[in-house]
Amino acid sequence: MENFIFQNPVKLIMGRGMIARLDKEIPAGKRVMITFGGGSVKKNGVYDQVKEALKDYFTVEFWGIEPNPSIETLRKAIVLGKENKVDYLLAVGGGSVIDGTKLISAGLLYDGDAWDLVMAGRPVTNTVPLSTVLTLPATGSEMNSGAVISRHETKEKYPFYSNYPLFSILDPEVTFTLPPHQVACGISDTFVHVMEQYMTTPGQSRVMDRWAEGILQTLIEIAPKIRENQHDYDLMADFMLSATMGLNGFIAMGVTQDWATHMIGHELTALHGLTHGHTLAIVLPATLRVLRKSKGDKILQYGERVWGITSGTKEERIDETIRRTEEFFRSLGLTTRLSEEGIGEETIAEIELRFNARGAKYGENEDVTGAVAREILESAL
Amino acid sequence: MENFIFQNPVKLIMGRGMIARLDKEIPAGKRVMITFGGGSVKKNGVYDQVKEALKDYFTVEFWGIEPNPSIETLRKAIVLGKENKVDYLLAVGGGSVIDGTKLISAGLLYDGDAWDLVMAGRPVTNTVPLSTVLTLPATGSEMNSGAVISRHETKEKYPFYSNYPLFSILDPEVTFTLPPHQVACGISDTFVHVMEQYMTTPGQSRVMDRWAEGILQTLIEIAPKIRENQHDYDLMADFMLSATMGLNGFIAMGVTQDWATHMIGHELTALHGLTHGHTLAIVLPATLRVLRKSKGDKILQYGERVWGITSGTKEERIDETIRRTEEFFRSLGLTTRLSEEGIGEETIAEIELRFNARGAKYGENEDVTGAVAREILESAL
Repeated sequence: MENFIFQNPVKLIMGRGMIARLDKEIPAGKRVMITFGGGSVKKNGVYDQVKEALKDYFTVEFWGIEPNPSIETLRKAIVLGKENKVDYLLAVGGGSVIDGTKLISAGLLYDGDAWDLVMAGRPVTNTVPLSTVLTLPATGSEMNSGAVISRHETKEKYPFYSNYPLFSILDPEVTFTLPPHQVACGISDTFVHVMEQYMTTPGQSRVMDRWAEGILQTLIEIAPKIRENQHDYDLMADFMLSATMGLNGFIAMGVTQDWATHMIGHELTALHGLTHGHTLAIVLPATLRVLRKSKGDKILQYGERVWGITSGTKEERIDETIRRTEEFFRSLGLTTRLSEEGIGEETIAEIELRFNARGAKYGENEDVTGAVAREILESAL
Repeated sequence: MENFIFQNPVKLIMGRGMIARLDKEIPAGKRVMITFGGGSVKKNGVYDQVKEALKDYFTVEFWGIEPNPSIETLRKAIVLGKENKVDYLLAVGGGSVIDGTKLISAGLLYDGDAWDLVMAGRPVTNTVPLSTVLTLPATGSEMNSGAVISRHETKEKYPFYSNYPLFSILDPEVTFTLPPHQVACGISDTFVHVMEQYMTTPGQSRVMDRWAEGILQTLIEIAPKIRENQHDYDLMADFMLSATMGLNGFIAMGVTQDWATHMIGHELTALHGLTHGHTLAIVLPATLRVLRKSKGDKILQYGERVWGITSGTKEERIDETIRRTEEFFRSLGLTTRLSEEGIGEETIAEIELRFNARGAKYGENEDVTGAVAREILESAL
């Protein structure tokens, strides 16, 4: 086990009717900017619940934080927030709304262009307090300090780190009416978050391995049931809890991490607008195929414990494990090949170029360079 | 899944050499009282590491917090702390030292007798800041807000809740020289902590079930290896991490809990001085035998997932699962029967009396009364 420092101060408030607690959690007198994505929260009742709970506060609403939140949009939110002298932010939405609001929370206290804060590549700790009401389980942003911010004009997408939300409210009922494709992408996103922290080498921490496998097993168990009935409270609660636990540091103690699949996936989103979780479903199986040598022992453990694959030669078991993984993503209703999305050599060349330009060395062994990214993408054709 | 609110702010600092970070974590200028148990930290080098790291601070040492820390001892520490106007506490030891120091942290800011704070039965939030250096993995006290305080003159033992430690340093190397009996009791304690949060009914949360099972599987895997080689860093690191994760709330989200075994075990410690983890090894198998009806479905899941027991009738599988559980505790070198410790009817009658006197209704179904405690203890004879 590697040395580590872990701390996650987020207050997680989970269950039916918990949105009504907002006025117990946000100090009285705060000037709150509420941030939203599109209008779905007006249809599923979340908007009304939030407004009712905050009826005694000064509030201003910012609408339109899009999937893969862009600096172009967030700049407008920062202007609005400064105009209204807001001193508290409440993000109501999925990972994109929460991610975007993390940058707003830093930008409100920064005099220059908020894109500077992204490009600086350093965690920003001078932020306006931020809490969240999660509507789409996927990114884990509700319980971590990370974000991913896009810049449309240059088709770029970069990570950004700031403070943790003070609290996050997770009511599984708000997920009942999510579009099935979004649920599929959320399951895929969660699955791959776990894999990025797990699929390296065995034996770094037995506890962490078991916990990662436990989330994967849960997702595999609930995914087909959710496709049949998205209104089952306990199923959606386990999905929601899995997504949060998948990227809040709880399964990352003392272990190495990969994240190469994410870095490649981000480029596919930046270039083609594919939903993040969908890009991961395409890239992950290919990453496993290309890195099957360095990851072989862990693939075997994952195959045995998560998929029950115990017979065959080592190579056959690895093959079967990767096949089952890709099949899982397809069972969610997602495509897993670039060609199915009309993506080919032009994109591969562009991503290789971008990786080379920034001297990319991703993955736990820092061996995913531009050339290896090309191999992975070719394997995903 | 039940509604829940989770928050655990403890900063966990784990790994080799991490004790040297103390001066980065404790604000300069603090007047620190360091609390210890017996003298083992002087033999294993922990004392020297702590003193070296804190050489620029005002420090005062309080020695002699005993296993099952007593109010009689803690009163003396509170007097010493007040005399020295300490404004920071560093507990260096196992769960007893940390538990005791939690009461000291509250008692330092209270004018009356600190036993009042225990008997009040309410969490105390007005406390002196407290951090820990853990030397014995077992209780999880380093990452929770609970403690258990004894009163020798009346042979009583009660829970007490205050603030979380600010940080806890876990260096697995400090466990290499622990007496094997203490390690065995630590493993047993951890195992039963997990069981108290898990062994109720299935299906409350798939994720939490998997995580609980993951710790149990880890303990079962590492226990025999630790008995062979207590100097294996990775083994002891996984033991240490398991103990902390076993009682920090991470596996308790949205699920019911039991704790009847603990309440009975506390009485055995109070009356006979048996080590806490050892009492649990005696009581837990008996609790499962007596409550096999209400816990039957979960025992089956536990038997299948943790012990691989899949054949036989339902009753046979439950029998075998309980037998394997008791056998596991015996494999640690612990006795699992009251008669082996010379404990019999007199103690059973006293515990039944105590439970009845306080109207005890323990367990997730509130059905462990004095009469049921008697049944459990008789089953443990």
